[in-house]
Amino acid sequence: MSSEFDLIRRWFSPATDHTLLAGGDDAALVAPAPGCALAITTDMLVEGMHFLPGADPASLGHKTLAVNLSDLAAMGARPRWAFLALALPDADEDWIAAFASGFLALARTHGVDLAGGDTTRGPLNLCVTVIGEVPATRALRRDGARSGDDVWVSGCTGEAAIGLAVARGAIELPEIDAARCRRRLERPEPRVALGLALAGVASGAIDVSDGLVADLGHIAERSRCGIELDWRRLPHSSALAGVPFTERAAAVLAGGDDYELAFTAAPDRRDAVLAAGNAVGVPVTRIGRVTAGESGVRVLDADGRAIALAGGGFDHFRKAAR
Amino acid sequence: MSSEFDLIRRWFSPATDHTLLAGGDDAALVAPAPGCALAITTDMLVEGMHFLPGADPASLGHKTLAVNLSDLAAMGARPRWAFLALALPDADEDWIAAFASGFLALARTHGVDLAGGDTTRGPLNLCVTVIGEVPATRALRRDGARSGDDVWVSGCTGEAAIGLAVARGAIELPEIDAARCRRRLERPEPRVALGLALAGVASGAIDVSDGLVADLGHIAERSRCGIELDWRRLPHSSALAGVPFTERAAAVLAGGDDYELAFTAAPDRRDAVLAAGNAVGVPVTRIGRVTAGESGVRVLDADGRAIALAGGGFDHFRKAAR
Repeated sequence: MSSEFDLIRRWFSPATDHTLLAGGDDAALVAPAPGCALAITTDMLVEGMHFLPGADPASLGHKTLAVNLSDLAAMGARPRWAFLALALPDADEDWIAAFASGFLALARTHGVDLAGGDTTRGPLNLCVTVIGEVPATRALRRDGARSGDDVWVSGCTGEAAIGLAVARGAIELPEIDAARCRRRLERPEPRVALGLALAGVASGAIDVSDGLVADLGHIAERSRCGIELDWRRLPHSSALAGVPFTERAAAVLAGGDDYELAFTAAPDRRDAVLAAGNAVGVPVTRIGRVTAGESGVRVLDADGRAIALAGGGFDHFRKAAR
Repeated sequence: MSSEFDLIRRWFSPATDHTLLAGGDDAALVAPAPGCALAITTDMLVEGMHFLPGADPASLGHKTLAVNLSDLAAMGARPRWAFLALALPDADEDWIAAFASGFLALARTHGVDLAGGDTTRGPLNLCVTVIGEVPATRALRRDGARSGDDVWVSGCTGEAAIGLAVARGAIELPEIDAARCRRRLERPEPRVALGLALAGVASGAIDVSDGLVADLGHIAERSRCGIELDWRRLPHSSALAGVPFTERAAAVLAGGDDYELAFTAAPDRRDAVLAAGNAVGVPVTRIGRVTAGESGVRVLDADGRAIALAGGGFDHFRKAAR
């Protein structure tokens, strides 16, 4: 590759005890902690599919790493190494420097070494692989939920979806709320510390990237169980107070890109779950329970009746859920 | 991602002792061998840059993995896990199946599990991350060559470059030679077994992807030494017998894509190097020596004079090197 594309090599980590060699050889050499399994995730982001043309490069750098760290958080793993492969249509040094600044600032926050990567000319494409460490028996898998477990969510969902609606001009909000929602969309904070605190406590976990109901559906499917959510318990961001109810409910239940953790835990671990959230300063809310039988995810209203969610519509809400 | 893009998930490996979980969760979970370091490499291949539009998908699948396995071979690492991220312009099931068949056949040959990946719609882009295991003290690094070491190469170089010239119609060869050169270009065989046999024996290594002289230049640079090659010792493929001398010399010294191993070893390891090659059935040839001082790579003719290689030209060859 021509040297102007090799800018990213400047940011490879220096050698440490756990990153023996980053860049400059045929492969990176890393030394995992003894006794740990490795959690490994790869995400490929394409312009026009995952981000808009002209997206702010620093935010894009942040988010490109954040979505991968969120996957590791949902495994209860401690992120250690990142590998960044980039296809760029041209060698725009300013763009690359801004992208790297966002990526590397988040990496530093979480103690992640940029251990390798690749750069080439081509249509804009960002591919990140992140590796984390977790004792195998403490890993948070999607197939670990059991009937009778509680269902929990961190923080609140819906802000990112409303942030996207604001960015598109579909919804207007007071400036402070709009800024909060847009920041949530563009600079999501992966729940790494919470995932680590929940390892060995939660029975199953997933990060909320596609929407709360859809993502919990993956836990239900893999754990061969059902999930019932109590609509009244779902946390709502105060930034969404000005959003019409139907749009707000859709965002909370089906909005993607929030990167909260949705997880399950046995009822006798309630204190441990609350202590984990408290220890890392992230609110956790008990929002439902795991049921027997492969019945998917149902959202129940105040009277215990299932709210129809078909096709992303929430028509039943106006009368049933308030 | 829409389900038609999820075809690749069919090929994720079943759970084993060292691959605890491949696919179906937020991340793969793998269990590295105790006491090993991990060698990790990422390559991104883009249509038009690394392969021609319309390339045979099975060969492309093979080569996409092969170039990464070659990087691990050059570290002396045993490849264990691959992660495959694909951007595809459309969900052509036949294309994907053929690509996967080439990729997975090579993975099986080398005992590599496809442990995870990602698929998305976008301009054709193939990004592979491969992870291998190697005891840290036995890893073959580019910075390990020492003045006085021998320089070796496996097999022979130049066939892939001539294969490309044949494919482009720039050179004509007898059919059997042309087929051999084209196969070398399209279906390179990474020297994984040789790399493993050389771990702890060779002092430094690199795979020949950019050309023998250029790649040995990386060892010289990283090891802060010089390298002298003896032109008369360089192995020439019999398939190149019909290639005009100048083009043949250029291919042997500067042709890329052969994926042989070029490596250094102390003179007292000559028997061990030959035994390693013999054990895995790969010829190894001693082609030069490591010198003191950062003087790059020089190719010496029969009289010990340096042959000029400037600009990829080999004008000096006709009179000096035969």
